Amino acid sequence: MMVGTLQTLETLSGGVTLPKGFSAAAVSAGIKATKRLDLALLISDRPATAAAVFTTNKAQAAPVLVSREHLARTSGTARAIIVNSGCANACTGEDGLRVAREMAQATAKAVGCTADQVLVASTGVIGVGLDIAKIRAAMPEAMAALGGDQGPMAAQAIMTTDPFPKEAAARITLAGGEVTIGGMAKGSGMIEPMMATMLGFVTTDAGMPRPLLERALKEVVDDTFNAITVDGECSTNDSVMILANGASGVTIDEQSYATFTDALRTVCLRLALGIVRGGEGATKLISVTVTGAAAPAEARKAAKAIANSPLVKTAIHGGDPNWGRLIAVAGRAGVAFELSRAAVMIGSTVLFQDGRPYDEAAPEAAEYLKNADINVTVHLGAGTAASTVWTCDLSAEYVRINADYRT
Amino acid sequence: MMVGTLQTLETLSGGVTLPKGFSAAAVSAGIKATKRLDLALLISDRPATAAAVFTTNKAQAAPVLVSREHLARTSGTARAIIVNSGCANACTGEDGLRVAREMAQATAKAVGCTADQVLVASTGVIGVGLDIAKIRAAMPEAMAALGGDQGPMAAQAIMTTDPFPKEAAARITLAGGEVTIGGMAKGSGMIEPMMATMLGFVTTDAGMPRPLLERALKEVVDDTFNAITVDGECSTNDSVMILANGASGVTIDEQSYATFTDALRTVCLRLALGIVRGGEGATKLISVTVTGAAAPAEARKAAKAIANSPLVKTAIHGGDPNWGRLIAVAGRAGVAFELSRAAVMIGSTVLFQDGRPYDEAAPEAAEYLKNADINVTVHLGAGTAASTVWTCDLSAEYVRINADYRT
Repeated sequence: MMVGTLQTLETLSGGVTLPKGFSAAAVSAGIKATKRLDLALLISDRPATAAAVFTTNKAQAAPVLVSREHLARTSGTARAIIVNSGCANACTGEDGLRVAREMAQATAKAVGCTADQVLVASTGVIGVGLDIAKIRAAMPEAMAALGGDQGPMAAQAIMTTDPFPKEAAARITLAGGEVTIGGMAKGSGMIEPMMATMLGFVTTDAGMPRPLLERALKEVVDDTFNAITVDGECSTNDSVMILANGASGVTIDEQSYATFTDALRTVCLRLALGIVRGGEGATKLISVTVTGAAAPAEARKAAKAIANSPLVKTAIHGGDPNWGRLIAVAGRAGVAFELSRAAVMIGSTVLFQDGRPYDEAAPEAAEYLKNADINVTVHLGAGTAASTVWTCDLSAEYVRINADYRT
Repeated sequence: MMVGTLQTLETLSGGVTLPKGFSAAAVSAGIKATKRLDLALLISDRPATAAAVFTTNKAQAAPVLVSREHLARTSGTARAIIVNSGCANACTGEDGLRVAREMAQATAKAVGCTADQVLVASTGVIGVGLDIAKIRAAMPEAMAALGGDQGPMAAQAIMTTDPFPKEAAARITLAGGEVTIGGMAKGSGMIEPMMATMLGFVTTDAGMPRPLLERALKEVVDDTFNAITVDGECSTNDSVMILANGASGVTIDEQSYATFTDALRTVCLRLALGIVRGGEGATKLISVTVTGAAAPAEARKAAKAIANSPLVKTAIHGGDPNWGRLIAVAGRAGVAFELSRAAVMIGSTVLFQDGRPYDEAAPEAAEYLKNADINVTVHLGAGTAASTVWTCDLSAEYVRINADYRT
């Protein structure tokens, strides 16, 4: 009987090639105008259980449609993921769909699997055709570059205007042995010219039944990738994919599910916070916690409204402990809110409580706002539910990046 | 039988004191730190029918609560409106409520009416107490300054960081005679430090039954003040008030309602567009029209989402004909959207239609974007409903204004 056995979780450096049985490659296929890395290949040495969460945007890009199709057709089995940056293959009509399918076919041929065992992702300019010839031509070089140490290179190849690559990994020790989880992500933004596409790829050498893997991914994404916002936009290409290949010999079951999910959450949260820290023009990471909500969905809704408010984001950028803006956004968030019981804290400094301001505490809060990592808490006074979301500040640099003409 | 008689509508310069029987005054009461005008008094020489629309923010400021109370108590009769700038009297608890009531009482005493015949509005810093002594002390000077030519001064006194005062007026000729409508407004923003409070005050010398006046105001506000957005924020103090005093001798009935409402819409739209043009850091007025929506509410929802998108606003600021951002926001707006039937026009240039881009037209659209007034149209491909909203571009200056520490 293994219940009660000590289970450990350690965070590690490294990414998608840290778990056993995964290798990656990164090449420059000439999709980006400059000679930067723009094509990443990630493969498992055996068929892996696969799950994914995709953008809810109704203008879904071709790679999203094709990856959905493949997951449905295989009931969630995959051998490889092919990702290009520099072109989103979105709003490209029938041609775009054909190109996304051909990307999978070319990868399948090189890897030696069926096309529907390949998942596809793209990020970059919207509305511009993706040249499949470039991807075909780069495939031999990618296969030659494949290696168990190429995760960091792949994390670079999926970047667009990200200021740094984002990787995270964790290892858990279960009764049956060690399981490793690794991930990479790219975030906002895309000045050439598009939406802040978010892509996340996670690998694990755990074995895992599909329903359990899907449940874990959905649960974790909701607390991590879906709990961050740079500018409230949701792209045509957003995707988070996970492959579980079982190479560790350990299979996750209901008993070890919570431990695995905690580790997955650790990896995804580190990736997600990396995206926020690397947000366009960001100088601060802001954690917005809403408490006292009537329901969890209301807590999340209010937290998102605060995190997306340009007035809140500019105030924090400017180091202004402007609790009035926090109260005013909470009041217009469309959730239950009781001013006389509401409260605002910046860091651990109470600035408003019981219907009255504590402006004498403003200098203390202003001092705290000089930090790079900021916590703000708004109590709605309407119940007991809570939620945390993360965002970055809004700087003049954000405007500069996004106002730049794309040509 | 007067149906079919020619009815004319002319727009005029001037504001709240242009209609007969209204006078105004503006003084510096010392509420603002500088010696600028900060108190406006608007009175009708006889009891006027009154109606108002207030902020939907749940953190309602004291003047909003008191004005609501007074309108309910009088069933919509008022003699005067007292407005201060420099202090919002919001989030100020019981003290704030008392001060707002005392503002009405002091005004009533000076004007010679009951306190509940006075409407109250405030705009400025949130969470700071309003000093009633300053308002009492300024009342004699305000009464002495009252005049039928003081509308422009009142329009200045209600400003906070507005770059210019906003006034508009129109005159209609009905069977019974001439009716004049005048208005003033203040918009965003308030760097000292608060929300973009919007206040609008409209006067008319038409007589009008309360239900008709309320119907007209609600209808018009929905198409004008509620169809603009600077940054998606809704303040604790937003109010639009109208007084109809009957001094023209003409009474509006069901027959002349449409003509009156058109004139009221003309006045309110000019005021609302003035607010957008004067938005914080604004360099362009952007009209966003959504067509092809499944329902009017969906058209409005998509138009608001586009108008509030920082990616759209920065692209237009930078002169980038970035139709992809428009499509992507429409796709995530939470309304019915069919990519294969969607279209995007910047000015009269089609950039995306029938599922494919027309990038060859981009230079033409880029040239158009050099104008100060920009129209963009997004067709959702999901129905026949349409809606237009107005916004401004997002500039680095907006960030600078709002990131400035308030002290």
